[in-house]
Amino acid sequence: LLPSSEHDRVSIVLVNTRNPLNIGAAARAMSNFGFFDLRVVTPYEASFREARSAVGAVEVLTAAREFSSVAEAVADCSLVVGTTAASRREMQHPLRSLDQAGSLIAKHVRRGRTAVLFGSEKRGLSNEDLSHCHWLLRIPTREEHGSMNLGQAVAVCLYELARHTTKPHRSKPAVKAGAKPRPNGKTAAVETSAPAKAKDLERITLLLLEALRLSGYIPAPAEPSRSALADEKIRRMVRRLNLSTADAETWLGMLRQMIWKMGAGSPESP
Amino acid sequence: LLPSSEHDRVSIVLVNTRNPLNIGAAARAMSNFGFFDLRVVTPYEASFREARSAVGAVEVLTAAREFSSVAEAVADCSLVVGTTAASRREMQHPLRSLDQAGSLIAKHVRRGRTAVLFGSEKRGLSNEDLSHCHWLLRIPTREEHGSMNLGQAVAVCLYELARHTTKPHRSKPAVKAGAKPRPNGKTAAVETSAPAKAKDLERITLLLLEALRLSGYIPAPAEPSRSALADEKIRRMVRRLNLSTADAETWLGMLRQMIWKMGAGSPESP
Repeated sequence: LLPSSEHDRVSIVLVNTRNPLNIGAAARAMSNFGFFDLRVVTPYEASFREARSAVGAVEVLTAAREFSSVAEAVADCSLVVGTTAASRREMQHPLRSLDQAGSLIAKHVRRGRTAVLFGSEKRGLSNEDLSHCHWLLRIPTREEHGSMNLGQAVAVCLYELARHTTKPHRSKPAVKAGAKPRPNGKTAAVETSAPAKAKDLERITLLLLEALRLSGYIPAPAEPSRSALADEKIRRMVRRLNLSTADAETWLGMLRQMIWKMGAGSPESP
Repeated sequence: LLPSSEHDRVSIVLVNTRNPLNIGAAARAMSNFGFFDLRVVTPYEASFREARSAVGAVEVLTAAREFSSVAEAVADCSLVVGTTAASRREMQHPLRSLDQAGSLIAKHVRRGRTAVLFGSEKRGLSNEDLSHCHWLLRIPTREEHGSMNLGQAVAVCLYELARHTTKPHRSKPAVKAGAKPRPNGKTAAVETSAPAKAKDLERITLLLLEALRLSGYIPAPAEPSRSALADEKIRRMVRRLNLSTADAETWLGMLRQMIWKMGAGSPESP
């Protein structure tokens, strides 16, 4: 079993949820299984905090944060996992079973924050949403009826995650010595070798796209839909790199330099 | 992995459910994870079959059966498992974690039908309901917020059960050779050594209570509540006996004989 602070490094991200009752249901399952960081991206109704199905989950709903894009919602996460009911649709991502996923996420949260994304009731996660993910997890439902109720899907995922992690003790949060600066003033080595956060990966993605367009590798888009496709492809590719924090910094520097060289103006100040 | 017909030997029993949407949600989770036998005991609204939350679960809802008591709903089951959120309340039953329970139920369905009982949203299962159970399973929720939404609880339990069993193929149901009469006309040995069904255990319970009252072991009840308490205690005790089908028959015969001897009239015809 893992140290208790690790539950606090899991963020549940609900994207474009239509029914506020489902947000309430997700919050209730989070509270049941001891997860407390709920993030919502452009829900259909802003009134979700009053959701009646959130029995006992007022704490989670009150602390929930709203974001206007997936990129912002996952910015501080170094692992982003999408959920899907699909087993056969053309997959651009590695697809893992829920129990594999639980084990991998439990390992990851020792070092960094993980976001688990759930899409809207009707359509699930869009391709754009998925392009922010490192990989996808699939709940093992029947092929003939794969699509789960959102609140139930969240409950099943959190049950599995809680099997692999220990529950947090809210009254006395665990503090990890390794996360503090060392006595000699240096931060622990783990800081730079830790996986890069989503906000850095997104900056790399945007700079890389700029560089590719400047270079002519990606032609100036004739139609916006083709442009979106290229963006998603590059975004996924960057997530597959498994960059560390230090490597991400290096990449940012390299890309800025190349963009400058290609004539788009002066490089950003580092 | 186990033969596919074993999913069909699991019955989900919803007792006194108040909100028909929760019956719909339970049905949807059943369909997602490949379970099809839904039984409801005196739901608050008879209109549950139209539940809107049952996306894709029409098959399950249409086939659902209504019963007027737990005893009738579980009559053909040889293992009856109650679900609870309680971890500390005074337990009269063995309490197993959900993953233990999944493994035990998967073993049991090789030989007989299992019922998994879920109580009402407000109160869970009553002591009378619980007295029909062999043991209880607990979903590992936080002690501070143990009570789950009904649909989510069903989903989590079925996810765990499906981990231990194989999904049924609805188009070509598996037929087990051992369940058929043997060529020589005898039924397989497993028939009599199989665990006794709930209806036989309930007949034993009622005869035993009659015998105990006739004998003066249980005094004629001064107040009905004390009588109910004695009934539940005896019912639980009978479930702990782990009787086989053959042993249950023997017990029925023995009790009938004792009752006759104690003067309550002629013994029932065997």
